[in-house]
Amino acid sequence: MKILVTGFDPFGGELVNPAIETVKRLRDNISGAEIIKLEIPTVCHKSLRIIEEAVVKYDPDVVLSIGQAGGRPDITIERVGINVDDCRIPDNEGNQIIDEPVYPDGPAAYFVTIPIKAMVQRIQSRGIPASISNTAGTFVCNHVTYGVCHMLAAKYPGKRSGFIHIPFLPQQVIDKKNMPSMSQDVLVEGIEAAIEAIVDTPTDIKVMGGATH
Amino acid sequence: MKILVTGFDPFGGELVNPAIETVKRLRDNISGAEIIKLEIPTVCHKSLRIIEEAVVKYDPDVVLSIGQAGGRPDITIERVGINVDDCRIPDNEGNQIIDEPVYPDGPAAYFVTIPIKAMVQRIQSRGIPASISNTAGTFVCNHVTYGVCHMLAAKYPGKRSGFIHIPFLPQQVIDKKNMPSMSQDVLVEGIEAAIEAIVDTPTDIKVMGGATH
Amino acid sequence: MKILVTGFDPFGGELVNPAIETVKRLRDNISGAEIIKLEIPTVCHKSLRIIEEAVVKYDPDVVLSIGQAGGRPDITIERVGINVDDCRIPDNEGNQIIDEPVYPDGPAAYFVTIPIKAMVQRIQSRGIPASISNTAGTFVCNHVTYGVCHMLAAKYPGKRSGFIHIPFLPQQVIDKKNMPSMSQDVLVEGIEAAIEAIVDTPTDIKVMGGATH
Amino acid sequence: MKILVTGFDPFGGELVNPAIETVKRLRDNISGAEIIKLEIPTVCHKSLRIIEEAVVKYDPDVVLSIGQAGGRPDITIERVGINVDDCRIPDNEGNQIIDEPVYPDGPAAYFVTIPIKAMVQRIQSRGIPASISNTAGTFVCNHVTYGVCHMLAAKYPGKRSGFIHIPFLPQQVIDKKNMPSMSQDVLVEGIEAAIEAIVDTPTDIKVMGGATH
Repeated sequence: MKILVTGFDPFGGELVNPAIETVKRLRDNISGAEIIKLEIPTVCHKSLRIIEEAVVKYDPDVVLSIGQAGGRPDITIERVGINVDDCRIPDNEGNQIIDEPVYPDGPAAYFVTIPIKAMVQRIQSRGIPASISNTAGTFVCNHVTYGVCHMLAAKYPGKRSGFIHIPFLPQQVIDKKNMPSMSQDVLVEGIEAAIEAIVDTPTDIKVMGGATH
Repeated sequence: MKILVTGFDPFGGELVNPAIETVKRLRDNISGAEIIKLEIPTVCHKSLRIIEEAVVKYDPDVVLSIGQAGGRPDITIERVGINVDDCRIPDNEGNQIIDEPVYPDGPAAYFVTIPIKAMVQRIQSRGIPASISNTAGTFVCNHVTYGVCHMLAAKYPGKRSGFIHIPFLPQQVIDKKNMPSMSQDVLVEGIEAAIEAIVDTPTDIKVMGGATH
Repeated sequence: MKILVTGFDPFGGELVNPAIETVKRLRDNISGAEIIKLEIPTVCHKSLRIIEEAVVKYDPDVVLSIGQAGGRPDITIERVGINVDDCRIPDNEGNQIIDEPVYPDGPAAYFVTIPIKAMVQRIQSRGIPASISNTAGTFVCNHVTYGVCHMLAAKYPGKRSGFIHIPFLPQQVIDKKNMPSMSQDVLVEGIEAAIEAIVDTPTDIKVMGGATH
Repeated sequence: MKILVTGFDPFGGELVNPAIETVKRLRDNISGAEIIKLEIPTVCHKSLRIIEEAVVKYDPDVVLSIGQAGGRPDITIERVGINVDDCRIPDNEGNQIIDEPVYPDGPAAYFVTIPIKAMVQRIQSRGIPASISNTAGTFVCNHVTYGVCHMLAAKYPGKRSGFIHIPFLPQQVIDKKNMPSMSQDVLVEGIEAAIEAIVDTPTDIKVMGGATH
């Protein structure tokens, strides 16, 4: 199996993004799967173009994207991406899309096609807190969650995708009040556990709205 | 205009549900619209059957459902319902559905068809905190958010629907630690403001994935 | 019984302070006690001088001060004031005292001398959330909590005092994210209930470190 | 310099206590100071007796106690201990003291005598979130914060003491909803940084209510 793992660059005034920092530190081979690492910009549409180039180039079985969810205390596996961009802040190229669909011709949502509950359980089995999230927001993280699902469904059938949100790193919350964080080592171990669950879980146990749970 | 406003009965060990308490106290006519009030059980599918009976009986233009979101500090207007039941607790008839679609033949999600941003602004203009929510969870509230959208799209075209989550009442949080609440008077004023926005907002300003924003 | 009830003016960029707004709306006679209402500035030392002038002028039995604790979801009765000013922001005259004692010759702390648990219970009995707080912070609210205790102990023996923190009003949190609030009516009812408990509770049931609980 | 560092055993249904787990893993010599490690029971008064035995036996210059503050996201250095036991749950010997003084003849409070702000800064300089706390609660943690200060002031003059609260470990929050945690490695590094600040900070820069800040 080949898994393309993407991580965003820093945004929103942060100097680092735990997403790309964590992706960089992943082992190159997890449970027998080859891990391909890709930094993507926190920019609507451009992020999807760069992912598509890598899909064409590397032909991965799974696209797993990682993003920062400042304020969440645990690793959250997203269940669904919705067809809307409604950005609270501008993206890294200064565009702030309000209430536009990601793809005008796309359906309202896609359930991700990775085994979200097996991933939560595997992360927890390492002593690391994790849970299912039912919203990836309406910024670039949801844009990628939805956008990759749509891209694969429309043009690269048989490939699967999903999204994981991770907390701030400890150093990011020093000047923030009452904000949870998770250390780099724990993040890497948690994401590697999640990837193991993707590798180990049969893909056809249950299909719902296009999703394998 | 005729608006069917539904409120759930108490669940999860609570003695009251601010949803039905608020619905009961709404004016019968808001901005010229006739308000029809309906208590629904916190039960998957049965709630939808009772709503459908009322849709047939009263022929409303809009179905607006109200539910309790314990822990949220403000009135939240839901943006989307997703096609999954994944219940943390049993419903009021003891059924705890895990990872089943609401409707097996339905799409992954529906955007609600009420003017969510105009509703937030109208509530805020009364000095009452409100915001958009991007998840109604995966319990009976989402079940109704999604289910009514699907029912109307499939069988009653031209009718619109949406969902509002409201905080606990003050008396519900007395024995809970560090939990926000909102008083009954403020809830009624907030929901009435939201309904005014539904009445006053043209329905065809913008359509996205079936949604009017 | 005569009770002097003080409320701060707005600070920290807020347009209103729920403290003085609530004090203004209190009944003039609660359970037979005469209520004297006093607005005080959010300024270290000056606030205490103005309270002392009122103590001399009105000869109250109890001084009860009310302050805003933005972010807290319930009415909190403070247990203790500590002998330190350590201000996160400047007060309303631009002074930002860092790590100075309120009174250099004072003890480390005073327990308040009002019946904090009876007050919590009375507020809760009205269906309004309330709890004991073990810190009034280190800004002007603690300054007044400690300072009035010290003033009374040193110069006006037999008089009692205490402090109640109240949440933001709903209109204050409209532009704040995920922030609890409490409506004006509930605040007035809660504070009146607290005052009833002060009036009704015998003052010598238990003394600890100078406190009656 | 010799520093006695104490850590509590598990309480409140937890299987581990990050306090003693962290204390066990500290280096035996930090910045030239000898570190003496002591497990103490989460029991009122007994905890203080065991600390006093160690004070007599080892003659430390500083007593630094570590405790778990479940729910806090960062390392918090306590500013003050107050003369009250008011326990929400029973201690580990089943006693639940309500509204009793720790020492009936003690003052209302003690400011700790360790350099709390230098400690916060040193921890933060390692990229680890930390802040001052103004309340250690009213359970065994405050009991020890206050009790050790009183013991040293009354019987062992010249010795100093203080208290640090630390978050849950990641494995403790797996079955808790929306709860922050901090990894074992980060906790050890943070507490070692705090101890370095104690060693490196002159003890007489400023005295307030008996505290050196």
